[in-house]
Amino acid sequence: MPRTGRRPGGGSGTQEAILDAARAAFSESGYDGATIRGIAGKAGVDPALVHHYYGTKEQLFVAAMELPFDPTVILPALLEPGLDGLGERVVRMLLGVWDSAGDNNPFAALLRSAMTYDRAATMFREFASRAIFATIVEAIDADRPELRTAMVASQMAGIVMTRYLLKLPAMVQATPDELVAGIGPTLQRYLTDPLDLPGG
Amino acid sequence: MPRTGRRPGGGSGTQEAILDAARAAFSESGYDGATIRGIAGKAGVDPALVHHYYGTKEQLFVAAMELPFDPTVILPALLEPGLDGLGERVVRMLLGVWDSAGDNNPFAALLRSAMTYDRAATMFREFASRAIFATIVEAIDADRPELRTAMVASQMAGIVMTRYLLKLPAMVQATPDELVAGIGPTLQRYLTDPLDLPGG
Repeated sequence: MPRTGRRPGGGSGTQEAILDAARAAFSESGYDGATIRGIAGKAGVDPALVHHYYGTKEQLFVAAMELPFDPTVILPALLEPGLDGLGERVVRMLLGVWDSAGDNNPFAALLRSAMTYDRAATMFREFASRAIFATIVEAIDADRPELRTAMVASQMAGIVMTRYLLKLPAMVQATPDELVAGIGPTLQRYLTDPLDLPGG
Repeated sequence: MPRTGRRPGGGSGTQEAILDAARAAFSESGYDGATIRGIAGKAGVDPALVHHYYGTKEQLFVAAMELPFDPTVILPALLEPGLDGLGERVVRMLLGVWDSAGDNNPFAALLRSAMTYDRAATMFREFASRAIFATIVEAIDADRPELRTAMVASQMAGIVMTRYLLKLPAMVQATPDELVAGIGPTLQRYLTDPLDLPGG
């Protein structure tokens, strides 16, 4: 049965109810605190139906927040060729997703809230930690993987902020190839090179 | 006469009127469009009095927006020792300013607005271009100085976003020394090293 098809007691009204309940639960309880069971209860459906339509909690979050990318798809694709060239692939992926999703995509809205409201920040942080950072931390074959991953996140967040939100002219005018060449090596160094940290 | 002292027709009521008029003018007309003359007119004072209390338009912006740093003071101090080690000095300065100014400092508020409202984005962009980026572009002794400066801005914006606004645990827990060692070389490369840009 197709995941978007109808089933007894299902249908698009039910799907909307699940997504509404999910958005409410994630923003009230954070990503970690929200549960499929609780969301199903709020939507008045069986938890199995939530899994049927949306898969894991992570995929439900992606659907509820209408994120323009699904980490369960994107991360394996980025990591599959190995750590070599990963920095450049990450920059190219970020630009590809955002250039096609548009400046006012739902992930931009989520980021804006997360920078203003503590609850949204918690939800964002928890989702990013579980669904994105944990996989990268696991893949890194060097000391201080959490700090390295966070530094990668900092440079990626900065690209989003300056190219798409603040729209600094030189960042907007740069071609994807220029940004991949300019910033890819930064991420590669954070991911794989010696960092010479104090006391390290 | 001390710049904060009273003078005939002056006093703190007048200073508040000038700052109010400046905030209104900057947010309505952007940084480039606002003029000392227009701000003085709105506040009902002579332009000379605005200069007397606040100096240049740049310094008036810093005072009106209560920025925790003054670029006319900070930039010369950063650049004076030369380009060598500039990346590390910039990271250390950013952390020093923000760690002591607190997470809810007025610059954070300005950044948040700039990521949400077009007018605030324009004001921020124009101020950053004239008061900060132009000086760095001028100091860089390499190709593509505007793009290099924008990449520096992107990594700095990313530090602010992940350490102070989103509060990613690994970024919050990192010591200033660790971030200087980890991220300083990124800025140094953007400022001075060959970038191998396509077609460059």
